[in-house]
Amino acid sequence: MDHPIGIGLAGLGNVGAGVFQNLQRNRTLLRERLGLDLLIQKVAVQNPAKRVSEGYPESVLTGRWQDLVEDPAVQIVVEVMGRKDESLQLILASLRAKKAVVTANKALLAEHGAEIFEAAQQNQTPVFYEASVGGGIPIIKCLREALVGNHIASIHGIINGTSNYILTRMSEADLSFPDALAEAQALGYAEPDPSLDVNGWDAAHKAMILASLAYGFWVPKDQIFVEGIEAITAADIRFAKLLGYRIKLLGIIKASENEGSEVEVRVHPTLIPQSHVLASVNGVFNAIAVHGDVVGEVLLYGRGAGQDPTSSAILSDIAEAANALQHPRRDLGFSAHSLYGTCKPIGSTLSEYYLRLTVEDRPGVIAQISGVLGELQIGISSILQPESDEEGANVALVMMIHTASNSQIQQALDRISVLSCVKRAPRMIRVEHFS
Amino acid sequence: MDHPIGIGLAGLGNVGAGVFQNLQRNRTLLRERLGLDLLIQKVAVQNPAKRVSEGYPESVLTGRWQDLVEDPAVQIVVEVMGRKDESLQLILASLRAKKAVVTANKALLAEHGAEIFEAAQQNQTPVFYEASVGGGIPIIKCLREALVGNHIASIHGIINGTSNYILTRMSEADLSFPDALAEAQALGYAEPDPSLDVNGWDAAHKAMILASLAYGFWVPKDQIFVEGIEAITAADIRFAKLLGYRIKLLGIIKASENEGSEVEVRVHPTLIPQSHVLASVNGVFNAIAVHGDVVGEVLLYGRGAGQDPTSSAILSDIAEAANALQHPRRDLGFSAHSLYGTCKPIGSTLSEYYLRLTVEDRPGVIAQISGVLGELQIGISSILQPESDEEGANVALVMMIHTASNSQIQQALDRISVLSCVKRAPRMIRVEHFS
Repeated sequence: MDHPIGIGLAGLGNVGAGVFQNLQRNRTLLRERLGLDLLIQKVAVQNPAKRVSEGYPESVLTGRWQDLVEDPAVQIVVEVMGRKDESLQLILASLRAKKAVVTANKALLAEHGAEIFEAAQQNQTPVFYEASVGGGIPIIKCLREALVGNHIASIHGIINGTSNYILTRMSEADLSFPDALAEAQALGYAEPDPSLDVNGWDAAHKAMILASLAYGFWVPKDQIFVEGIEAITAADIRFAKLLGYRIKLLGIIKASENEGSEVEVRVHPTLIPQSHVLASVNGVFNAIAVHGDVVGEVLLYGRGAGQDPTSSAILSDIAEAANALQHPRRDLGFSAHSLYGTCKPIGSTLSEYYLRLTVEDRPGVIAQISGVLGELQIGISSILQPESDEEGANVALVMMIHTASNSQIQQALDRISVLSCVKRAPRMIRVEHFS
Repeated sequence: MDHPIGIGLAGLGNVGAGVFQNLQRNRTLLRERLGLDLLIQKVAVQNPAKRVSEGYPESVLTGRWQDLVEDPAVQIVVEVMGRKDESLQLILASLRAKKAVVTANKALLAEHGAEIFEAAQQNQTPVFYEASVGGGIPIIKCLREALVGNHIASIHGIINGTSNYILTRMSEADLSFPDALAEAQALGYAEPDPSLDVNGWDAAHKAMILASLAYGFWVPKDQIFVEGIEAITAADIRFAKLLGYRIKLLGIIKASENEGSEVEVRVHPTLIPQSHVLASVNGVFNAIAVHGDVVGEVLLYGRGAGQDPTSSAILSDIAEAANALQHPRRDLGFSAHSLYGTCKPIGSTLSEYYLRLTVEDRPGVIAQISGVLGELQIGISSILQPESDEEGANVALVMMIHTASNSQIQQALDRISVLSCVKRAPRMIRVEHFS
């Protein structure tokens, strides 16, 4: 047995505490499997005294993250502070000191990935980040290694557990968005401030990371179309069900015609056919479906967040890092990169659409609306006039629209919304089928 | 760019041809991602002249697999002949010649895995076998690497696409087993001789490989309980649906109390709750759900067979092998091993059960049967007397049984089957819930 591999842990929040505990608990197992002993050498926290009172050993605690970088016995730095500037400084300083880095910081990777991987390359020191997307689901390893022989045609991911829990409860129990959110908060599945989860930006950070792996370049954050689930109503979910669909918040990544420098990345609520496996992904679970040109469709499913699942991914990254320290090798597949590309503008992306309108209950209304769509060369695949809870003389009208560009449909919505028979702002939700 | 890595391909059947084509097609992509050039140096086939006439280049073809071993330019041997003795000889000879081996030969690994991995260890030369289980699904990499920090509690796999297609069609279209099988054969999803697929043994070979990865030792083939789907009726599938279940052929692997030397491995038709994601895995698709002590449940889904999905797994193995040749390293996690352990006897395994009886349609029958179960301390969780197609004075009686050992339930069945009110041999199917 070689000397133990020294680990520096930055952060003892929910994930950090999980890493600490699970690394202790399964240390013997890891030693057997890896032929290496993993030892937590130092733990950087904001308040060491408080952690001592919680039972953490005083000898490993420090209030300075710089101590992880400066301690020569720390060979792997695990960044689970989840901050911005400090996390970035720690990662860059660790790489300069030739310490392998493991991080779960999706927001940081999404915004500073290019810089981080440039530093990794310059210092010939690896960065692992399996825990940044999909919690315990090994999607990063799958894209980088298992699908190395595939051109990636598309990725569709349910990659925000909070949103998926809310949509599941709205669907199962016919709850409103605010009621389902309140339930998620009561159960600890949503933060007191749930914005980043329900507005789609947490999923967007993860989608940016997946896109970078699949296509080899980063997309600027401000080019991505992101729509959350706040405006989804129980009625939309019911109508979608009647039509054979479920509504899920998806991160969608697709190859563009300009494959070397452009990619389609978007995050929005999406109608998906109920027969597709993604439609069965309920509660806080995540799942990512990848379409490769050789493998066809592969889907990975599991808990996308939480102390233990996230720890599992970090343990596997630590194992990889420990192995890489002993046997340096070129990263398999999809190597770390520091290039930027562009995101296909949302206006030129194609999809099918669900439209829900509130219209006057009189003859001629459907003809008027379909006339507008016809003039714009937009095809209707079905029309549903469901029992609805609209009051008075108004009724709901649901239309499923054939493939059209996003700017085409926006033009149609602009014209439809000013018709006198249309009583409220139309609701549009994108639809995805899976080839 | 280094010299190209020479590949020797043994076999140009369905999978071999796919590897040949996809390696050509995505050669540039692989070169970019790996920084290595992969070159097919030699291809061993039974009838080289025939292959030349099909357009394969004469310069690489040979009728002797020994040529792959003897050619110093061949650094990686890809065994996709799918034979027994010859495949084993090729693999062992390649390892002795220090050539990395990639194989998809599940039957061979299941029966000779210990011998093969012993040779790999002695020669310090790796064997990769991602394509042996689940086609394009990266379950081997997931178990070996992504879940390296987890004790594996259980694995439940739909790992035979033919059986799953047949069960899906029986469920969707209310077909009988023979009709669904005939349809699968017409579509090329079942072989002319479908025995190995429908009798459970193909799944058993794969379950043996998964068990060896999760627990570190091989289980002798003759200790495994294997039951196929031949006896499943459309009525069983309908009754299961009424009770909220689907019937799937599962490979089930569970940790035993004697974790170091015993493991539970069994293959049989199984009722699973329709709310579980595995219940949504239809057609020829495969899926494997793994329960780890840290990660909780992770599930991988995709095409479990076919030329292209299987090629995708082999391409990733070739990439790993090429990398390993350049940068030798200890295998991450679950290392190759050559130990044998034992399989928990089926009699002592625990599960819940579905019983379908054909009984006389008269009062007192249920009391008589539940009396037998009660005497044996076996609990009934529900009773269903469905509309059935039994003729005359007989009716179907379906009972769901609480957890009991397999020998307990067998004892009960022995006693029930001789009751005068019981008109046919009782049908028992195991039930799995997922914690």
